[in-house]
Amino acid sequence: MPAATNEFDRLRVVLVAARNPLNIGAAARAMSNFGFLHLCVVNPYDAAFREARSAVGASALLANAEECKTVAEAVADCTLVVGTTAVRHRELQHPLRQLEYGARLIRKQLGSGRVALLFGSEKFGLSNAALSHCHWLMRIPTCEENISMNLGQAVAVCLYELIRDGKAARQTEKVKRATAAEFERITTTLLEAMRASGYLDRRPIADVEERMRRLVRRLNLPPRDAVVWLGILRQIVWKLRSEKTRVD
Amino acid sequence: MPAATNEFDRLRVVLVAARNPLNIGAAARAMSNFGFLHLCVVNPYDAAFREARSAVGASALLANAEECKTVAEAVADCTLVVGTTAVRHRELQHPLRQLEYGARLIRKQLGSGRVALLFGSEKFGLSNAALSHCHWLMRIPTCEENISMNLGQAVAVCLYELIRDGKAARQTEKVKRATAAEFERITTTLLEAMRASGYLDRRPIADVEERMRRLVRRLNLPPRDAVVWLGILRQIVWKLRSEKTRVD
Repeated sequence: MPAATNEFDRLRVVLVAARNPLNIGAAARAMSNFGFLHLCVVNPYDAAFREARSAVGASALLANAEECKTVAEAVADCTLVVGTTAVRHRELQHPLRQLEYGARLIRKQLGSGRVALLFGSEKFGLSNAALSHCHWLMRIPTCEENISMNLGQAVAVCLYELIRDGKAARQTEKVKRATAAEFERITTTLLEAMRASGYLDRRPIADVEERMRRLVRRLNLPPRDAVVWLGILRQIVWKLRSEKTRVD
Repeated sequence: MPAATNEFDRLRVVLVAARNPLNIGAAARAMSNFGFLHLCVVNPYDAAFREARSAVGASALLANAEECKTVAEAVADCTLVVGTTAVRHRELQHPLRQLEYGARLIRKQLGSGRVALLFGSEKFGLSNAALSHCHWLMRIPTCEENISMNLGQAVAVCLYELIRDGKAARQTEKVKRATAAEFERITTTLLEAMRASGYLDRRPIADVEERMRRLVRRLNLPPRDAVVWLGILRQIVWKLRSEKTRVD
């Protein structure tokens, strides 16, 4: 494993006894999506690993994946080893943490050392022997009715939670809005269209100007849209008026 | 779709033109893991959908999945339609939100109405026509080097973000919004008014239907206002048409 240049480089995803080449490939793809580089496959079904590696479009990440005989070997240089489990209440010999909290602890640890994140086989999860290498376990909050996730999807969700940036949540929107003058021009033109189309004859509205002004203000238009709406309304008014002239 | 009993029941996952039965199955599995029930498949490759449905272990959720011919049909009763995209800066005609922030907005909306979450085909993502039905787009924060996620993994990550810390998000606003079907009626009537008024003769617009659909979606109308706007536009169209008849 090369020297870590940033903290996410210090994470190692460890697939223990994975059986399905598609899942190994999917795990690698999610890692690449979220910027993690180091995959280690422990004791995979040989055919599965070979097939995943030789698949069309298999990534450099997969080509560079390490293969280890034992979990001990795979995690030897890590200062934190975290197992993933679907189970809520195994007779747990380990602390069990929700993904969100666990990911926070992992990020902290990545500041100073390598962390291994272990995923078990599709069928049996992590064995007790594999679990015994873990400091604690992490659980994705799935439903009681169907707790067991697909391996590739579980990897994707865990890595997403690791990179999820608390700051993004505070993202504020800079929504530009049209000016009051533009809203007022739209209101005026709309009222003209309503009059010229006979709408107000059929459905007289009390305080129509104020009501339409409020209606238009609620549109919350960005400036470019305001221009488009005004253009459409003006054309409609022009057409209604000119037809009227020709008919009268 | 049965009556919504809790807010997550109001989410509909919509897969548009999915090609790979494994991905359809994976999307269904992630939905089931995170407690979402309603899957709609728009215009899938027929063989893919049949194969996904008949796969060993295919879920009840998949068996109950709806199949629609068009996006309009799939989202008709929804008050918010959100597209997913891997792209950071398409010449975007839509607001683009980070997953974390977008999920928060979706949860809010689920407090009072149905929400459709759209995923495009593995190869091409969502088409511009499909995107034109969306109020805004959401992006999973993947790396520049490999932005494009596997479909099943993308669904898993989005749904995880939706259920993550649901409690914190419980301060749902009861912002009522018009349904997609109402927006579509307004769009259609607006297009008629534009044609009848000669607007499109004077200023031909490429992709006019998609552009107007987006313009109308951006209005963010509450249901009562939608009724008023539709009434005004209908009267205008009626008048423009009837004048035309009299003049011709």
